[in-house]
Amino acid sequence: MNLTEQVVRSFQNIENERHRFLITTFIRKLHEYVNEVKPSEEEWIQAIRFLTDTGKLCDEQRQEYILLSDVLGVSMLVDQILHEKNEIQTPSTVFGPFFIENMPVRPYGGSIVRDGGDKIKPLLVRGRIMDTDGRAIAGARIDVWQTAENGMYSGQDTKQSHDNLRGTFLSREDGSYAFQTHLPVSYPIPDDGTVGQLLGYAKRSVWRPAHIHFKIEAEGFQTLVTHLFLEGDEYLANDAVFGVKERLIVRFSEQKADKNSREEYGLTQDYHLIEYDFVLTGVSP
Amino acid sequence: MNLTEQVVRSFQNIENERHRFLITTFIRKLHEYVNEVKPSEEEWIQAIRFLTDTGKLCDEQRQEYILLSDVLGVSMLVDQILHEKNEIQTPSTVFGPFFIENMPVRPYGGSIVRDGGDKIKPLLVRGRIMDTDGRAIAGARIDVWQTAENGMYSGQDTKQSHDNLRGTFLSREDGSYAFQTHLPVSYPIPDDGTVGQLLGYAKRSVWRPAHIHFKIEAEGFQTLVTHLFLEGDEYLANDAVFGVKERLIVRFSEQKADKNSREEYGLTQDYHLIEYDFVLTGVSP
Repeated sequence: MNLTEQVVRSFQNIENERHRFLITTFIRKLHEYVNEVKPSEEEWIQAIRFLTDTGKLCDEQRQEYILLSDVLGVSMLVDQILHEKNEIQTPSTVFGPFFIENMPVRPYGGSIVRDGGDKIKPLLVRGRIMDTDGRAIAGARIDVWQTAENGMYSGQDTKQSHDNLRGTFLSREDGSYAFQTHLPVSYPIPDDGTVGQLLGYAKRSVWRPAHIHFKIEAEGFQTLVTHLFLEGDEYLANDAVFGVKERLIVRFSEQKADKNSREEYGLTQDYHLIEYDFVLTGVSP
Repeated sequence: MNLTEQVVRSFQNIENERHRFLITTFIRKLHEYVNEVKPSEEEWIQAIRFLTDTGKLCDEQRQEYILLSDVLGVSMLVDQILHEKNEIQTPSTVFGPFFIENMPVRPYGGSIVRDGGDKIKPLLVRGRIMDTDGRAIAGARIDVWQTAENGMYSGQDTKQSHDNLRGTFLSREDGSYAFQTHLPVSYPIPDDGTVGQLLGYAKRSVWRPAHIHFKIEAEGFQTLVTHLFLEGDEYLANDAVFGVKERLIVRFSEQKADKNSREEYGLTQDYHLIEYDFVLTGVSP
């Protein structure tokens, strides 16, 4: 019996069939890899060191292994596999490490800008939450989060209020949602760890194109985790984590404050506007 | 372009061809794996946690990732690939994490027992270091190390002297070597970490059969890293790290002290004896 079969056999006593499959398939792939590349002892120990150092960088605030999964395209691959793809449904993308639960529920059209927002031109984001037949989904819970102008998220940046540029909104009876923020900015992923070293060695960009995160939940529908990206961003073609999808790139327009914007959203100055409808797929029965 | 190709392409700017090959082949295998097992989000995050926790367990004294490599058979596979296999050469096996460099060079027949050795029956290990044509290799540097009776190595066990059950010997003009020790014992690998959890879940044994480690270096020859195992050990068939090879299993005999043992080795009491010749392969020109 060859070594690979010996190792696979040693895991045959795992009772849970799925776990046995996950582990033994992994062993086969890993041995295939080793047989194919025939690592030297130095290469093997370098791999051990890389894995060790990546683990040691992780703490409450930082998850270098998720970042590694992101830059190797694994997070996007898992996302692709998990989410049913139909032509109508809004595509999903990576969740990322910066979500914070239980943010305040804000009223329709409310702003998520808590810190220094008066200096920046407002952005109004609005649209509808719909099912794949175009019917309104009322009461969908819409979590949004994005970076501040310095490219950092609250939680990552101790100078920001905990709930700065974060908030939860509910869609109205007609499926409509709206909130105010300002334009997100592109930003580099943390590049002072093993992942940064790897990307540096490969001369890869560490930048992510500007985006707003969305997590949209509604009863009877698959939860949608996605971003909206801004048309024209210079990093759209080489997002460090491979998160960009064509249908998630949106254009923002310049708008003049008028009676309607003042009355409906309290917007008394000129603003940017993004209009986007999200389409959710039902949970398979 | 599919996601895997996008990711592979993102690493095309690595100049070192070998490194580019190692990384891109790894990405292809990893994506193949993900496509094959289709992990749920929970399974993905569990893998992230396992990798993270394994890294966090590593410190100066402990290398949980090497242990993981060992119990997944990867260390042995790398060893198999690296070392030329011919019928005559002594087989190699895993290096393990317990080697310490620069141990004292001891005289022919000297003992490596530093702590409490007078209570245990001595073991004499002797034989020759030869090339594949049976010619003596003089001046080979032979490092040996093994566990104490409690199943622990010095370095791991703060109660032992630093050089207990460790030593370096040189082969004589006729290729002969000899040293005194006592029988090694089988022992469990560290099982209080992620590797222990994995083996426990798989109902796998955490034991290694008793063995003495050897590292044999001689100019013009490939360094040999191997063990000698004891015939009859109950864990020979399921070594936790897959290190056992038939030709490395040796029998020890019971010997009465006699004039010869007294004069040549200072052995005044009955002892165990192992006789084993090591055959080294020349370095390819």
